[in-house]
Amino acid sequence: MADCVFCAIVTGREHAHVVWETDEVVGFLDSRPLFKGHVLLVTRQHVATLTELSDALLAPVLAATRTVAVAMRDSLGAQGSLVAMNNVVSQSVPHLHVHVVPRTKGDGLRGFFWPRTRYDNDADAQAYAERLRRGLAVRPVRD
Amino acid sequence: MADCVFCAIVTGREHAHVVWETDEVVGFLDSRPLFKGHVLLVTRQHVATLTELSDALLAPVLAATRTVAVAMRDSLGAQGSLVAMNNVVSQSVPHLHVHVVPRTKGDGLRGFFWPRTRYDNDADAQAYAERLRRGLAVRPVRD
Repeated sequence: MADCVFCAIVTGREHAHVVWETDEVVGFLDSRPLFKGHVLLVTRQHVATLTELSDALLAPVLAATRTVAVAMRDSLGAQGSLVAMNNVVSQSVPHLHVHVVPRTKGDGLRGFFWPRTRYDNDADAQAYAERLRRGLAVRPVRD
Repeated sequence: MADCVFCAIVTGREHAHVVWETDEVVGFLDSRPLFKGHVLLVTRQHVATLTELSDALLAPVLAATRTVAVAMRDSLGAQGSLVAMNNVVSQSVPHLHVHVVPRTKGDGLRGFFWPRTRYDNDADAQAYAERLRRGLAVRPVRD
């Protein structure tokens, strides 16, 4: 897409510190990292969100994520990683991107899973589960 | 694994509100949701983290994530989703699990990508990129 900054990085029209490239995915440093070494993995093809990702790109995207997570541990000395993808809401650029962030115990990251809520009771949880089950049941299963 | 709570859910020894099952993956409600309808997807096989995930499970895991993200939009009226996986650090249960969380604009979730930092300068960013590139270059490429 002509006006997409991630497409511009993929084609080299926009500069980024690229660290990993495959036939399907390009990985580069996020310019405003959560922690230094934070990588964004984007599909070469312009795909807006996960729900539009084709079957053919599923394994390549997660394989690249795994590869970068391993390198982060070995090259940056990270103890772990946070892998995250925002779809639509909180998605700053509407081109699918996976954040791979190096994590270390005590690094101060919090808030992501806070505050959490509770179901009012088991019937409340059951009602949510039913809604999701119905949505999943009527959908053509692609996996 | 005998003492793994997610393995117990997969085999039915432990109760959970299961919403999605494939040959490779089981999805159920997180009992302490970030927002109601928050699903955890786990591999049937006990896999600790992303770095141990086998090639054969890459597409099934991301396909299930996509399926649940679509259902969340259609069944729960979510505008978008947050997909996240903690590896080692902040990983409460050492059995690979993908969080799929329904998101709506103005839902109040923040903090996940805050505060962000900056590279000291371009040379600092370049140094981090080089470390990652070296780690990626020497590793047998699996994707």
